[in-house]
Amino acid sequence: MNSIATYQQQIEDALKDKKYGSNPKELYEPISYIMSLGGKRLRPVLVFIATDIFDGDASKALHPALAIELFHNFTLVHDDLMDKAPLRRSQPTVHEKWNNNIAILSGDAMMVRAYQELCLADTTMLPQLLEIFSDTAVKVCEGQQYDMNYETMTKVSIQQYIKMIELKTAVLLGGALKIGALIGKAREEDAQRLYDFGKHIGIAFQLQDDILDVYADAAKFGKQKGGDIIANKKTYLLLKAIEMAESNRYLKEELHQWIAAPQFDAKEKVEAVINIYNFLNVKELARTEMQKHYELALTFLKDIPVAEDKKQSLINFAESLMVREM
Amino acid sequence: MNSIATYQQQIEDALKDKKYGSNPKELYEPISYIMSLGGKRLRPVLVFIATDIFDGDASKALHPALAIELFHNFTLVHDDLMDKAPLRRSQPTVHEKWNNNIAILSGDAMMVRAYQELCLADTTMLPQLLEIFSDTAVKVCEGQQYDMNYETMTKVSIQQYIKMIELKTAVLLGGALKIGALIGKAREEDAQRLYDFGKHIGIAFQLQDDILDVYADAAKFGKQKGGDIIANKKTYLLLKAIEMAESNRYLKEELHQWIAAPQFDAKEKVEAVINIYNFLNVKELARTEMQKHYELALTFLKDIPVAEDKKQSLINFAESLMVREM
Repeated sequence: MNSIATYQQQIEDALKDKKYGSNPKELYEPISYIMSLGGKRLRPVLVFIATDIFDGDASKALHPALAIELFHNFTLVHDDLMDKAPLRRSQPTVHEKWNNNIAILSGDAMMVRAYQELCLADTTMLPQLLEIFSDTAVKVCEGQQYDMNYETMTKVSIQQYIKMIELKTAVLLGGALKIGALIGKAREEDAQRLYDFGKHIGIAFQLQDDILDVYADAAKFGKQKGGDIIANKKTYLLLKAIEMAESNRYLKEELHQWIAAPQFDAKEKVEAVINIYNFLNVKELARTEMQKHYELALTFLKDIPVAEDKKQSLINFAESLMVREM
Repeated sequence: MNSIATYQQQIEDALKDKKYGSNPKELYEPISYIMSLGGKRLRPVLVFIATDIFDGDASKALHPALAIELFHNFTLVHDDLMDKAPLRRSQPTVHEKWNNNIAILSGDAMMVRAYQELCLADTTMLPQLLEIFSDTAVKVCEGQQYDMNYETMTKVSIQQYIKMIELKTAVLLGGALKIGALIGKAREEDAQRLYDFGKHIGIAFQLQDDILDVYADAAKFGKQKGGDIIANKKTYLLLKAIEMAESNRYLKEELHQWIAAPQFDAKEKVEAVINIYNFLNVKELARTEMQKHYELALTFLKDIPVAEDKKQSLINFAESLMVREM
């Protein structure tokens, strides 16, 4: 098995040489731009790892891996526009650097380019790969719509939240693994096991993100501490706190005052809400939920009939994703 | 050969039964909405006609035909948003009826649904169909980007304009015909001939639209007379008039005054610009250009080795599109 770094390098090399088109430049420059901003290339790496687990031909994984990365970056362009986000990987987002219409249209072109990249895969497996790819793509759209819906809803359940992050974030990890497995000629049921593994790792990963936003060493994590709290983002922590505060009139009132406050000192709000979180022990509850999905993910690996060292590499990779600075 | 009306009915019936998804409803209701607004279903009809020309199995044309119609309607949703258009087929556009983000995201989901629909085609021809479909889709994006670029450019040549309408409008007619031809098991070169036929018919069709906007009997055409003139839309007529007025200082000044006027009486502006058009004879020049593409289109039909009556049906259909109320 190649190291993760080797896969990442292979992906970077392929992306560096890639031309998405020349004219009109307003359509294609944003694609080159967003694709060049880097990132961990987590999803395409998962395609390679999954192919390798079944001793598949890694060279056949490249195009589908790039297709997944293109699709993921397309969602970033449109999501950033919908969320009015100014920055992506510390650089201006496409709609900020160009404009809204260019973000819409170059995003559209990226999605087509993603399908074209996927269609460079072996013809024999194309129908299967397309089915997973499109199915995953639709789910990601559904997740983003739920996320937008929840922004303005007053009551969102934990269950609704978990379903949302499953769709918006986790299924694409599952889809990448399943596509890689099929390229490795895995049986359908084993490919599905890898999908479920990826899905639950993805949910655990997002829950970890929710925790890190509040409890990470801000300097090491590279983000503003408590950004989610300032923005009233409906994370697992906030939803759990709202749910638990239901039975405590004083806490309920305090929490809702902070959420509803039109003006506030950011540091003061973050500290106050963290105090409520700590009192209610929601960090521990979030960690328990995260752990539940992490362990559930591992159970799907158990039944896959491949050598343990192959599985261990995937577990190591998943662990390296989970153990981030706290 | 089935009549056009039969094909249209078949498409309407299939669309009527179609479910694009249920939840979240904010994602799927706009898709059902835009798909239910009707229209001539020109592009899917072309898929059926092309399949029939080569005595192909019409039942195999349905999914690709619906895929083309879904893709076309996806472009309407995103284009209307980018153009800030309030109405589509006399009904509120998706971003007006819902909001901008929903128009972006439900459009994205429609594009995925279009690919899923296409993937219901025969597996054996899928790679070919996907290649044409994606190639056409990218060109349509390029055309829309050029169209947006030209809005703010002071100098656009006739050649640039024709290229823009070819990409934005005409290639999708060509793509629909080529896909239909391949379903009918046409040889590659004959499928390409139908593509080129469709492309030039499409250009002629758009030029006709430019002429109709100014010279049609407004009541019969169902649009505001001179809407393009009021909006300074860079049509063939306006670009040709600007080009010809170069050598006539008085006309040049008058035309540019109307274009630059921040305030004006709409009727007065339309009349004044039409007077300039008439003086410069641009309607006749536009008709000549239109006729050129129409006749060029027909030359591509000549070499296709199928019975003349099959071709004649296609010609009749193209003619029926061209001869609209004037």
